[in-house]
Amino acid sequence: MGAARDYAGQDCSLARTLELVGERWSLLIIRDAFFGVRRYNDFLAHLDLPRAVLADRLALLVAHGILAKHRYQLSPPREEYLLTDKGRELWPALYALAQWGERHTTATEGRRRVYRHVDCGAEVDPTGSCPNCARWIPPEDLELSPGPGILRPRTDPISRALEQPHRLLEPLTS
Amino acid sequence: MGAARDYAGQDCSLARTLELVGERWSLLIIRDAFFGVRRYNDFLAHLDLPRAVLADRLALLVAHGILAKHRYQLSPPREEYLLTDKGRELWPALYALAQWGERHTTATEGRRRVYRHVDCGAEVDPTGSCPNCARWIPPEDLELSPGPGILRPRTDPISRALEQPHRLLEPLTS
Repeated sequence: MGAARDYAGQDCSLARTLELVGERWSLLIIRDAFFGVRRYNDFLAHLDLPRAVLADRLALLVAHGILAKHRYQLSPPREEYLLTDKGRELWPALYALAQWGERHTTATEGRRRVYRHVDCGAEVDPTGSCPNCARWIPPEDLELSPGPGILRPRTDPISRALEQPHRLLEPLTS
Repeated sequence: MGAARDYAGQDCSLARTLELVGERWSLLIIRDAFFGVRRYNDFLAHLDLPRAVLADRLALLVAHGILAKHRYQLSPPREEYLLTDKGRELWPALYALAQWGERHTTATEGRRRVYRHVDCGAEVDPTGSCPNCARWIPPEDLELSPGPGILRPRTDPISRALEQPHRLLEPLTS
């Protein structure tokens, strides 16, 4: 929790947000939760981060009410991690960060990921609005597909599953 | 540049963005640049971070084309840091992160900061749109004021200056 100490003098809602989600890897774990990743081993395989870091970040996100633990199997006990409403409200920030990255860090082949409005099939724009329906689309109504700019360097089961169109927040299992 | 190494396996525009701006303090430096902070000593006083960290982050942000150095005095040489167009395009992401913080981390007194559309005086909504003008307002047309929830724990000159309404991106000097 170094960030909380460091930013303690900053009475700012951005600083407070970064205390909760600004630790390295936290936003990528939240991104994976939007993609439908729910299980420890799937986060581990997809993010390829040290186990201790993943366990720490998941515990922090649960402590802050961004993820909730849900037992999906009693014997042996198995738990999965689901975004809470508070966690789901991070979508506009995640989408805005990713769109900046699409614009400023993508190779010439184009976008890495394409988001379509499930109801009408149109691609949403960089602000997250559907040009057909003239409104902002919440994440549960978005379908994610690989774009022409994706490099597919990873061959873990979650990366493979994401090669097919997938509705956000629907479970994605290996 | 630890983040770049760590996220190297993630072919994702969010991960690429975090490589450039996800180091601790970077987004708060960019926030200050939107507030109008331009000079090393003003960032230092307002953010209260170690000099070496500030120097490192400013150099990284210049290297990534998010800030640009501008010499404003020849003798002795003095430089200031200005957001580039690429840097300014981070506003939607910063605003979305801060709005999440306003909603989920603010004390009961209300918002810490209020953003008004300069042209009409209306407060912009959590998506950054002006309810009067029915459009998204770019940062240069926003005026920042302290909200009822701000605690004012800091007495540095930049924090003092921000107690008055201030148009984003206009120079704010101590």
